[in-house]
Amino acid sequence: MAEYHGLSQIFTTTETSLYNNLFKSPNPPFHSPTALILEISPNPFPQTNHTTTTNFVPIIKNNYNFDNLEILDHELETYRSKFNGHGHDNSNNCNVYVAGHVLVYPSYNGFFEKPGLFLDQMFVRKCYRGMKFGKLLFSAVAMQAEKMGMGMVDWLVADWNEETINFYEKMGAHYIPEYRLCKLYGDQLQAFGKKSD
Amino acid sequence: MAEYHGLSQIFTTTETSLYNNLFKSPNPPFHSPTALILEISPNPFPQTNHTTTTNFVPIIKNNYNFDNLEILDHELETYRSKFNGHGHDNSNNCNVYVAGHVLVYPSYNGFFEKPGLFLDQMFVRKCYRGMKFGKLLFSAVAMQAEKMGMGMVDWLVADWNEETINFYEKMGAHYIPEYRLCKLYGDQLQAFGKKSD
Repeated sequence: MAEYHGLSQIFTTTETSLYNNLFKSPNPPFHSPTALILEISPNPFPQTNHTTTTNFVPIIKNNYNFDNLEILDHELETYRSKFNGHGHDNSNNCNVYVAGHVLVYPSYNGFFEKPGLFLDQMFVRKCYRGMKFGKLLFSAVAMQAEKMGMGMVDWLVADWNEETINFYEKMGAHYIPEYRLCKLYGDQLQAFGKKSD
Repeated sequence: MAEYHGLSQIFTTTETSLYNNLFKSPNPPFHSPTALILEISPNPFPQTNHTTTTNFVPIIKNNYNFDNLEILDHELETYRSKFNGHGHDNSNNCNVYVAGHVLVYPSYNGFFEKPGLFLDQMFVRKCYRGMKFGKLLFSAVAMQAEKMGMGMVDWLVADWNEETINFYEKMGAHYIPEYRLCKLYGDQLQAFGKKSD
């Protein structure tokens, strides 16, 4: 994804940093950086009774046909899920595969009464595009924000990505072209640690 | 500030919402939405020994001349601070005034190893502009991010605001014009609460 956005030179994520940032927060999901994982399976998913306190109920859809997963997805083994909805399945027999994800964190805007979610990244693996999974992931975020009584969902989009902008506008989003991203990082940020005034 | 940015129509903040969003979080400052207040006084500020656990030490500058505050600031009483650095001063004799603020919240970017701060808004009251207070507020945020071991500070800037963009670039920031803001809120967000698929 960083390559697609031409941002490989700023990419510093490691498996450890991802683990620390997503799973070691003392805050519950959606009150700290949180990933929603899009999983697919040729078998029906169990309609489990979730008794979590995180205010999130997994969204299960059965209207897809994944009988020929091996033909569709040539990296199937790489993306085999170790989590089958009941907990970790270390037997590696879990017939569930990761097809995409979305990453959000709680946000705030001083002009709004209620806090929100910032959608940091959304990704669907290439072989699963055109199946409305982007819509599914985006809807899951918007539904969650609404359910938690939040006032907004914010995200950034590249101006050359017309198809994506159209997609978001169809979902009801406001595209605000005049707001541009500024970012301080690396040496320029570290320099502030050495300044005395 | 919302008027200046042409965003009065989306402004829904109330005193209560501001209080709830900024002061009722179970998380410490900078781990939830946090405001830094720029206060000025004709008297020297006390160099107090701060024993807070919030990892923030107030920045005190004495190289300003505010002997004629009443002439400079015609809304002085409105902005008299009730907080004098030692706690609330209900006697209303506190000779300290609010000149500006900056609002931040913790952010995350999946391409970066370390989390960061998102700078939501920065404001210096009109009569205090041109005194490098913007630089002071921005530096305070960058220094705090660096001190907390964060990897970035992100914010948005209006593309027509050339002076501000130049200011940020001089501070070492990267201006990334291709990233534009998308925002889902109001009726369009609420619609997702009613959707079943």
